[in-house]
Amino acid sequence: MHSPATLPRFAVAALNRSLTAELQQKIDGKTKPPGSLGRLEVLALQLGLIQGRLAPHVVAPHVLVCAGDHGAARAGVSAYPQDVTWQMVENFLSGGAAINAFAGQAGMQLVVADAGVAHEFGPRNGLVDAKVGASGTANYLDGAAMSEAECALAMDRGAQLTRNIAATGCNVLAFGEMGIGNTASASLITHCLTGLPLAQCVGRGTGLDDAGLARKQALLAQALDAWPERPAPGGAGADDAVRVLARFGGFEIAMLAGAMLAAAEARMTLLIDGFIVTSALLVAMRIAPEILDYCVYAHCSHEAGHRLQLEWLGGMPLLDLGLRLGEGTGAALALPLLKAACAFLNDMASFESAGVSDKTSA
Amino acid sequence: MHSPATLPRFAVAALNRSLTAELQQKIDGKTKPPGSLGRLEVLALQLGLIQGRLAPHVVAPHVLVCAGDHGAARAGVSAYPQDVTWQMVENFLSGGAAINAFAGQAGMQLVVADAGVAHEFGPRNGLVDAKVGASGTANYLDGAAMSEAECALAMDRGAQLTRNIAATGCNVLAFGEMGIGNTASASLITHCLTGLPLAQCVGRGTGLDDAGLARKQALLAQALDAWPERPAPGGAGADDAVRVLARFGGFEIAMLAGAMLAAAEARMTLLIDGFIVTSALLVAMRIAPEILDYCVYAHCSHEAGHRLQLEWLGGMPLLDLGLRLGEGTGAALALPLLKAACAFLNDMASFESAGVSDKTSA
Repeated sequence: MHSPATLPRFAVAALNRSLTAELQQKIDGKTKPPGSLGRLEVLALQLGLIQGRLAPHVVAPHVLVCAGDHGAARAGVSAYPQDVTWQMVENFLSGGAAINAFAGQAGMQLVVADAGVAHEFGPRNGLVDAKVGASGTANYLDGAAMSEAECALAMDRGAQLTRNIAATGCNVLAFGEMGIGNTASASLITHCLTGLPLAQCVGRGTGLDDAGLARKQALLAQALDAWPERPAPGGAGADDAVRVLARFGGFEIAMLAGAMLAAAEARMTLLIDGFIVTSALLVAMRIAPEILDYCVYAHCSHEAGHRLQLEWLGGMPLLDLGLRLGEGTGAALALPLLKAACAFLNDMASFESAGVSDKTSA
Repeated sequence: MHSPATLPRFAVAALNRSLTAELQQKIDGKTKPPGSLGRLEVLALQLGLIQGRLAPHVVAPHVLVCAGDHGAARAGVSAYPQDVTWQMVENFLSGGAAINAFAGQAGMQLVVADAGVAHEFGPRNGLVDAKVGASGTANYLDGAAMSEAECALAMDRGAQLTRNIAATGCNVLAFGEMGIGNTASASLITHCLTGLPLAQCVGRGTGLDDAGLARKQALLAQALDAWPERPAPGGAGADDAVRVLARFGGFEIAMLAGAMLAAAEARMTLLIDGFIVTSALLVAMRIAPEILDYCVYAHCSHEAGHRLQLEWLGGMPLLDLGLRLGEGTGAALALPLLKAACAFLNDMASFESAGVSDKTSA
C-alpha cells in the first residue's frame, strides 16, 4: 500500500493577488481600448501576479523534456516501435527534432532528461541521466508500471531538475515529453483522475488507424480491469493520485509532475504543453491545487483527450493549431505570446504619457 | 460612373504548385508522425509554394500601417473622438503603441503611412506622407467618401509603398490600420462584397456599448439607403468593388488594397490582420482573385464580422486571442509561427538522416 511519507513535499503558495488592481489599472491605462488585447491582457495580469511585480519579464526560459519507456508499448498501444524513444532522444541531442527547431526559434534553452529510457546512452553531453528504471516501466496490463518508491524517486528527481534550472534565473519553464506509448498512460491517468469516460480519453496518439485505436481502447479497458483496487474515477486525493501514477506510469510523467510542483514552489510560470504533460499536471494538482495559478496552457492538442482535460481544468489554451507531436513543441510555440504580453505591459505608452484622448473624453 | 481605366493594374500570378509533391515529401520525411505539426505543416507548404523553393525563409518582414480619417466618424460611429487617429499616429512614431511593442518583439520593421489623416504632421521621420485627402474622407451618409480618382490614387500609392518595402528584400508583409470610424467602413464594404446581412457585419469596434452599437447599426443602414445605386449585395465584380470602396472609404482601406495587390504581384506572403484589413482584401480579391493564395490569416478578431469574413473566404486563422485592436497587432503576433514553419522545414532531421525508425518499419 501507499505510504505518503515517501513522497517529496512541496510548498506551493497560493498566488498573491494583492497587485491585481494596480496591474489591471496599468493594463487599462495603455493606449488601446480597454480589453482590446484580449487573452494577452489576461496573460499579462497572470504573469504580473506570479512574478509579484508590475513589470513582469520572461527570463531565461527553458523547456524540460523528460523521456521514458513504457512496458505496455510492447503490447501494441502505439503506431511506432519502442526504439523510437531512444532514437528521438538521440535526435534531441543532435539538434534535429521539432523541439530543437522551435526552442531555438523562441530563444529557449532545452534540457533533456532520461527518466527511464530502455537504452544505455552512456555519459552524454546534453543529456541528464535521471534514469529511474533501466528498461522502462513494467507493463501495467500485468501489474504496477512502477513501485511507489520509484514513483517518489522520479518525482524527486524532476523537482531537482527544476531546481537546477531555476538556478540559471529561469522564470518560465515549459514541459515536454518523449515516450512511445505515453498517450496510453496519459489516457488512463486522465480517466482515473477526472472521471471522464475512458473511451473519451483515448486517442490516436502518434497516428493509429481505426483498428489500432480499437485495439488501444480494448487494451486500456483491460488495464483498468487488471487493477480492481483502483480508486473510483475522479474521486482521487493526493495519495490516490500517486497510486494511479505508479500503476500506469511512465517515469517521464512522474518526473514531470515533480518538476512542475517544484516550479510552482519556485514561483515560476509553468508553460503546459499537450495531453501527456497535462496528465502529469492532473497528478500534481492533487498534491498541491495551488499549482494551477502558475499554469499557462500553451495550446490545445489534436489528441482528443487534451481538449477534455483543458475543459475539466477550466484552462484556456493560447494556441489551437492541430499539433499532436509532444516534446514541448506547443509550449515553445506559445512562448512568444508570453513575451508579447510582457512587452505591451512594459513598453506601451499610457493615454496620459502619449497625449491620446481616452474614450471617456469623447 | 466608374471608369476602370483609372484603376492601377496588377499582374498577380496564380500560385505555381509544381513543388507541391516535393514539399509534402520533405514535410512528411521529418522526424515526427505525419501531420503531427498540424497547421504549421500547411503553412510550411504554402510558404514553400509562394517562394517557389523547398527551403522558404522569412526575410526582412515588415508591417505596413496605413492611417486615415473618416467623415462618418463625426456622425458618431465610434466610441472615440476623431483626434485619436492622429494622436495614435504620433504614438506609433514615438514607439508607444501596441504595434511598436509587437513588431519589435517579432523583429518586424514598421512602416507608418498617412493615407489621409485630418491633421498636418509636417515632414516627420518615420512617417510616409501618402495623404490623399487632407481632412479625411467625406461622410458617406451624404455622398461618396472619396472620388473614384482619389480611390485609384490611394491604391496606387499603396502599391508604391509595397514596392519600396519589397526593395529591402522583404518577403512577408503584414498589414495594419488606424482610423477612428473604420470598422464602420469595413462593415459596409463587407456587407456589399459578401452579401452577409449588414447587422451581422456591424460590431462594437473600439468598444461601443449597447446604445452605441444600436446607433451605429442605424447609421450604417442609413448609409446604405443613401446610396440607391449600390450594387446588389455579394454580387459585385472588380468595378463594383471599387465603387463600394470609394463610396464607403476610407483612404487607408483603399491604400491597403493597393498595397496587398502589389505584394501578391511581388510574390510576397501577405499576413492579414483583422476586420478592417480583411475588408481591404475583399476589394483586392475582386480585382485579382489569385491574391488569396498568398494570404496567411494571422488571427480571428473579437470584432464579430471578422469571423464571418474568414468563413466566407474559407480562411483559417492562426491565432484566436480575442484581439480587437487593429494596427496589425494580430499579424505581428502571428509572425513567429511563420518563422517556426520555416524552421521545422529547414532545420529538422529526416527519419533517414537521424536514423529514427519510421511508422512503416514497426
